[in-house]
Amino acid sequence: MAESTFVVPKGFKAAACSAGIKKSGKLDLALICADQPVECAGVFTTNKVVAAPVKITQSRVSQGLCQAILVNSGNANACTGEQGLLDARRSADMVAEALDIAPEFVAVSSTGVIGAPLPMHCFEGHVPTLSRMLGVDQFDGVARAMMTTDAFPKICSRSIHVGGQEVRILGLAKGAGMIHPDMATMLAFVMTDAVLAEGLLDSYLKRAVNSSFNRITVDRDTSTNDMVLLLASGAAANDEITAGSAEDEQFEKALTEILLELAKMIARDGEGATKLVRIQIDGALNDDDALVAARSVATSMLVKTAFFGEDANWGRIIAAVGYSGIEMDPDLVGISFDHVAMVEKGLGLGKEQEALASEILKKPEFTVKISLGMGDGSAYYYTSDLSYDYVKINAAYRT
Amino acid sequence: MAESTFVVPKGFKAAACSAGIKKSGKLDLALICADQPVECAGVFTTNKVVAAPVKITQSRVSQGLCQAILVNSGNANACTGEQGLLDARRSADMVAEALDIAPEFVAVSSTGVIGAPLPMHCFEGHVPTLSRMLGVDQFDGVARAMMTTDAFPKICSRSIHVGGQEVRILGLAKGAGMIHPDMATMLAFVMTDAVLAEGLLDSYLKRAVNSSFNRITVDRDTSTNDMVLLLASGAAANDEITAGSAEDEQFEKALTEILLELAKMIARDGEGATKLVRIQIDGALNDDDALVAARSVATSMLVKTAFFGEDANWGRIIAAVGYSGIEMDPDLVGISFDHVAMVEKGLGLGKEQEALASEILKKPEFTVKISLGMGDGSAYYYTSDLSYDYVKINAAYRT
Repeated sequence: MAESTFVVPKGFKAAACSAGIKKSGKLDLALICADQPVECAGVFTTNKVVAAPVKITQSRVSQGLCQAILVNSGNANACTGEQGLLDARRSADMVAEALDIAPEFVAVSSTGVIGAPLPMHCFEGHVPTLSRMLGVDQFDGVARAMMTTDAFPKICSRSIHVGGQEVRILGLAKGAGMIHPDMATMLAFVMTDAVLAEGLLDSYLKRAVNSSFNRITVDRDTSTNDMVLLLASGAAANDEITAGSAEDEQFEKALTEILLELAKMIARDGEGATKLVRIQIDGALNDDDALVAARSVATSMLVKTAFFGEDANWGRIIAAVGYSGIEMDPDLVGISFDHVAMVEKGLGLGKEQEALASEILKKPEFTVKISLGMGDGSAYYYTSDLSYDYVKINAAYRT
Repeated sequence: MAESTFVVPKGFKAAACSAGIKKSGKLDLALICADQPVECAGVFTTNKVVAAPVKITQSRVSQGLCQAILVNSGNANACTGEQGLLDARRSADMVAEALDIAPEFVAVSSTGVIGAPLPMHCFEGHVPTLSRMLGVDQFDGVARAMMTTDAFPKICSRSIHVGGQEVRILGLAKGAGMIHPDMATMLAFVMTDAVLAEGLLDSYLKRAVNSSFNRITVDRDTSTNDMVLLLASGAAANDEITAGSAEDEQFEKALTEILLELAKMIARDGEGATKLVRIQIDGALNDDDALVAARSVATSMLVKTAFFGEDANWGRIIAAVGYSGIEMDPDLVGISFDHVAMVEKGLGLGKEQEALASEILKKPEFTVKISLGMGDGSAYYYTSDLSYDYVKINAAYRT
């Protein structure tokens, strides 16, 4: 489902290889590299149990500059104590040595099993190789090397024009399990060659993450390793994009679109998922209430299994709004599946509408619209259905 | 798993029948009746979407007296609007007419599909029959008539002696899906023949529910129909139990044991569940933090699927504590499965311990002990594993 063709921002190269971290022998180690230290912003997991690479990278990215990102799958380097920190630093040092750059410009990122020591011999043999392989044609390999239970690599890009110059944005993401909002919720690396006024990068990233990765849920579980990094090389040599300009708006729109597209790919690839469902709440007292209600419906196991069973069980939906804790009046609630109304003023509209809604539920993507009739608040959330395969994948993950 | 023999408190009779509400033809309508109006306390769903019978019964029970409880399965009479209220009242009226008692002493309770009108013809034909069938030997039938996706009826009783007099407590419960705490979370009817000082009943029930039904989780979803009713006939003619006495403590202990036993039956009978797991948190900053952490672990889908897979995946457990939001330091965490230590000071204890823990995970019941090393706070929660059958049962519930 990744775009088969995508644009690569100027000033970035990448490489990926099989380093033997995954037992399967698939791609599991990758390097993204800018031609020089570039502006960088990051969003990180809010879990109090923070993996070693997140600690290292969070501290380094807070300086605002980054030149290289080393990412591995197969091992999360989480709950690995002091040794984990030493290993994360050592792997970054290997990149710095191989590329002859300062270690503080190297970000590291890991995903996979928690609690096992990082297999350093896999890094020692392969980081130097990666540094020699760098090219502009291997970003697809990077997206693949980030995959754990992902069914497909997640890549999305856009070009926009700023004063006659083409400016490119490319996003790579991984994530299919342990996906839940209010944190970065997965790994994503986004590169652009745009020239941006100082200070814009951070706010772009925070807002875009909030309306994309923080609006998807697969299983409510939040990882110890999540991070989203945004790097801007400035190599497009466009007129600087400044806050409040038309270009500012255009750039943020493109960035948000890319992140939302990646987020939807993640929800669509939710472990065992067969459907991507948008939960749209309107008419809440305010936007905060709407978000709480949308999240409650999107994370209800009973709602998600009903989606899998293609059962237009609106009772579970209204119950999930009811226990979300927001102000609501059941007698004002309306529910529709795409264009098919199911509930008006809290009452079901009967078997005929249910039959029509069942047809909507057979689609791989649809929207559940819930109107609360309380005010102007609205919010959306993307969720997947809960299938046998979710259980299968997660019961057997480490075996 | 219900007790095969149980004691029936004096002053209560019951009857159950197949009224045709369930398509399967199984028991689905039952009546519990006291010889006269007796003291009554209730705890009800906190869902803002409240089923019609809950509204009626909550209002009636708040008067403190009750004589009859009519319960049906197969239809929840929830999200049924004004007609649902009329139907719930009408079904109570039928009981009042058949027993020649005041309608305000009749509680009604429903469980089953949401959003469908209550099939009143099933009640009309069978309520009078039930009233003629009443006896002391049909409480097992009542427990069966309350079942929806339950695999077995849930009954538990105790006798205690108060000043030479036998005092009996009998609890009946149903629940296997839509089980989540901080509300009554299921249907339970508890009867005792104890003579209790005025005002004790309410506080007994609230405390006992808090340490039993509010400590189990199957799927985080909370029903629109939950209620727990406690009725005291006083027919044991014991010396009145007064607050602060030894008998007071003894009675509350017995009541709490019954409710916890019923709660554990519900968790064990969690839809598709194969295991009952106690999550025990110790060493939290305070009891509130401990409860938040216990709930977070107990409701994690990744933890629950790992239990099903018999995988001692402690990384998911520590991650679930980490995102619970409480104060914690990963480097202080210890985790054990029953007596087998898995994690000390945040680090895994290796393959040998994992192999031992895997043996514990094969048991149908075990405890996960998580010590946080922050203070003296402790709490427990019971949870079930998440299996293929959970998905199967809930994807196909209405079909």
